[in-house]
Amino acid sequence: MPILCRPAVMVPEHTIGMRETLDLARELHADHPQLGLVLQLIENTGVHKRHLVRPLSETLRHPGFEARNATYAAEARQRVPEVARAALAAAGDLRAQDIEAIIFVSCTGFLMPSMTAWMINNMGFRNDTRQIPIAQLGCAAGGAAINRAADFCNAYPGSNVLIVACEFCSLLYQPSDRDVGSLLSNGLFGDAVAAAVVRGNGGHGVRLERNGSYLVPDTERWISYAVKATGFHFRLDKRVPTTMAMLAPALRALADSHGWDATALDFYIIHAGGPRILDDLRDILGVDPAYFRYSRATLTEHGNIASAVVFDALRRMFEENTLEHGASGVIAGFGPGITAESCVGTWAAPAGRAVVPPSRLAARGSGRS
Amino acid sequence: MPILCRPAVMVPEHTIGMRETLDLARELHADHPQLGLVLQLIENTGVHKRHLVRPLSETLRHPGFEARNATYAAEARQRVPEVARAALAAAGDLRAQDIEAIIFVSCTGFLMPSMTAWMINNMGFRNDTRQIPIAQLGCAAGGAAINRAADFCNAYPGSNVLIVACEFCSLLYQPSDRDVGSLLSNGLFGDAVAAAVVRGNGGHGVRLERNGSYLVPDTERWISYAVKATGFHFRLDKRVPTTMAMLAPALRALADSHGWDATALDFYIIHAGGPRILDDLRDILGVDPAYFRYSRATLTEHGNIASAVVFDALRRMFEENTLEHGASGVIAGFGPGITAESCVGTWAAPAGRAVVPPSRLAARGSGRS
Repeated sequence: MPILCRPAVMVPEHTIGMRETLDLARELHADHPQLGLVLQLIENTGVHKRHLVRPLSETLRHPGFEARNATYAAEARQRVPEVARAALAAAGDLRAQDIEAIIFVSCTGFLMPSMTAWMINNMGFRNDTRQIPIAQLGCAAGGAAINRAADFCNAYPGSNVLIVACEFCSLLYQPSDRDVGSLLSNGLFGDAVAAAVVRGNGGHGVRLERNGSYLVPDTERWISYAVKATGFHFRLDKRVPTTMAMLAPALRALADSHGWDATALDFYIIHAGGPRILDDLRDILGVDPAYFRYSRATLTEHGNIASAVVFDALRRMFEENTLEHGASGVIAGFGPGITAESCVGTWAAPAGRAVVPPSRLAARGSGRS
Repeated sequence: MPILCRPAVMVPEHTIGMRETLDLARELHADHPQLGLVLQLIENTGVHKRHLVRPLSETLRHPGFEARNATYAAEARQRVPEVARAALAAAGDLRAQDIEAIIFVSCTGFLMPSMTAWMINNMGFRNDTRQIPIAQLGCAAGGAAINRAADFCNAYPGSNVLIVACEFCSLLYQPSDRDVGSLLSNGLFGDAVAAAVVRGNGGHGVRLERNGSYLVPDTERWISYAVKATGFHFRLDKRVPTTMAMLAPALRALADSHGWDATALDFYIIHAGGPRILDDLRDILGVDPAYFRYSRATLTEHGNIASAVVFDALRRMFEENTLEHGASGVIAGFGPGITAESCVGTWAAPAGRAVVPPSRLAARGSGRS
C-alpha cells in the first residue's frame, strides 16, 4: 500500500507579521465602512506571520496580470527544484529517475506547458514521467494530490509519485477588491512550496489506505475565482467558516467506511483554511484541540498556504515524531466546490525504530469530550 | 481491463468555411508582409469547416478576458450536459450515479471551482464523485484523460470514469496577434465538446491495455500560452510541424513494450493537430494513410478541436464499425510540452455481435510501404 513520505516545505524569505497586516489594513482602508469588522476578522485568524515571494512593497503594487504571471513562473522555477529534491531525499534518497509521475498542484498562477514539463527538462526526471498538473481545485488540491498519487501507485504497484504544491497567494493580491471577504483574505493567505513523495514500495510515513472526495451541494459560489483582465480575484463568501458542519460528516463517513471512528483517531492533518475550521472540527468531532497542533502551527506561522497546508502540517508531525507504528489518522484538504479531499491511513514507522508510547495519548484521554 | 466506450461529440451551430477563413485573413491582414505564406499555410491545413460557439461577427470582437471567460462558462454549462448524458447512454445506459470520477479537460477557459463541481450540482452525479480537472495539458489532454481514466479504473476495479473534453478555441482568438503562427492558428482551430466513459467492467469499445507519456526534450516554448490581461495567447512555433519525427519513436516504444509493432496495428486514433502530423506519421511508420481517415476527417470537418480531436476521431471509428474483435490499435494525443499521451489497446466488440472481416484489411496489404 502506498506510503506518503516526509514532506519538504519552503517558505520565502520576505515576511509580514500580524501587526504589519493590521496597520496596512488601517492605512489602506481608513475610510472603509466595515474596517472594524475587517480588523477583528484578521485578528481572529491568529496568523502571526506570513511569507511572501517578493518584498511587501512590491507585493502591494499590481503590475498587471502578465507581469504577475511571469513573476509566478520565475519564482516557481527558482524555488521548486530545491524543495522537490529535498522531498526525494526525504523519501529514502530517491533520484528524479525513480519517479513515475509528477502531480503539480497550484492555483496561484497559470502556465502552459505546466511546470511539470519544466521540471522534466531541468531536473533530471525521465521523459516518460506522467505529468498531472491541477490548477482548479484550490486549497483542496493538497488532499487531491495525495489521493491521486495513492491511486496512481495502486494502478502501478511499486511506482513513485512526486507531489509539488506551489502556492504564491501573495501574487493574487488585488488592491481594488475591498469587500470584507477580500480584505480578510489579504490578511490570511501566505506563500509556500511543498513537495512529498508517495512511494508504492518502501519508505515510511503515512500508509494511504482509503480516500474519498465530497462536494457540499450548491456551494460553488462560496469560494471562487472571478477571472478578469487583472488576473484571478479570490472570492470568499461569509458562509465559508460554517462549512465544517457540512464537511465533518464526510470525514466521519470516510472513516466509517474504513471501519474507523473519526472521533478517535491518533492524528489529524487538517487543511487549516482559517481558525474556525479547527475550532468547529474540535466541537463537532469532539477531538482534543491538541490533535490539531500541526495544522494550527501552520496557520499561525505561515497563514493559509492553500494546497501546501496539509504538507506543512504533516512535516511538523514527522518532526515531532511521537506516533506509534500503526497509529491511525486522517488527512483532509478543503477548498472550492466546496470540496473535501480526504484520506485515512496509518503511521508506518521506520523499520527497526524503537517505538516510544507517545505522551500525547495521556492528553487525549483527558481532553476528549 | 478498462474499456473506453463510444464517445459523444457536439460541435456548435455556428460555422466558418475555408473560403471565409481565407477571405477574412486577406481582409484583416491585407498589409501583412507574409500574407501569402499565411494563406498558403491555411490552405495546407485542409480544414474545410470549423464550428464556433458564438456567431463569427461576435467571435472576431475581443470583449476582454473577463467577458470571454464568462462566455466560456455559460457555453460550457449549456453544452456539456447533453454531451455528457449521451456518453453515459452510449456506454450501456449508465446513469450519472454510476460514475466514480469525472476527468474534465479544457484549456480554453479557466473556472474555479471547475466545471466538475457544476456537473455534480446540476447533473445528478454523486457528491463523492472524484473531480479531476486538467487545464494545462492543451491538446495532449485528450490522451491524458483516457490514460488517467484507465489508471483510475485499475486502481478501483469495476469503477466508471466520465471524461469530458470541452474546447472553445474560438474564445482564444486574439485580434492583436499577427505573427504567422497566430494567423495560422486562427485558420486551424475549432470548437467542440466531447465526452466518453471508461468502464472498469463491461461495455464495448477500446480495451485500454497500456499507456505512456513522453516529453520531447527542450521544446517547452514550441506550443505555449502567453498569459496576458487579454487572456491566453496561443503561441505556435514554426518547428511544431516537425515534431512527429520526435514523437513517433515514443509511439514505437510504447507498442514495443506491449509486444506490438507500431507500424502494423489495426487502428490509429491520432491527434490531428495539423495535416503534417498525419503525413509524417504515414512516412515515418509506413502506415497507409487510410488508417488515419478518422483523424483526417475530424481535421477536415472540424479543424483542430484540441483535446477533443481523439474523441471525435474515435467516434467515427465506432460509427464505421468495421473492426474485428481483438483488433489492435493506438490512441495518441499530442500537445504542449511537447508531450505525447498515448495508449495501446484492442477492440472489444459488443458481445454476441457477428464479426465481418473488415474490407480495409485489403487496403492495408497493398498500401503499406
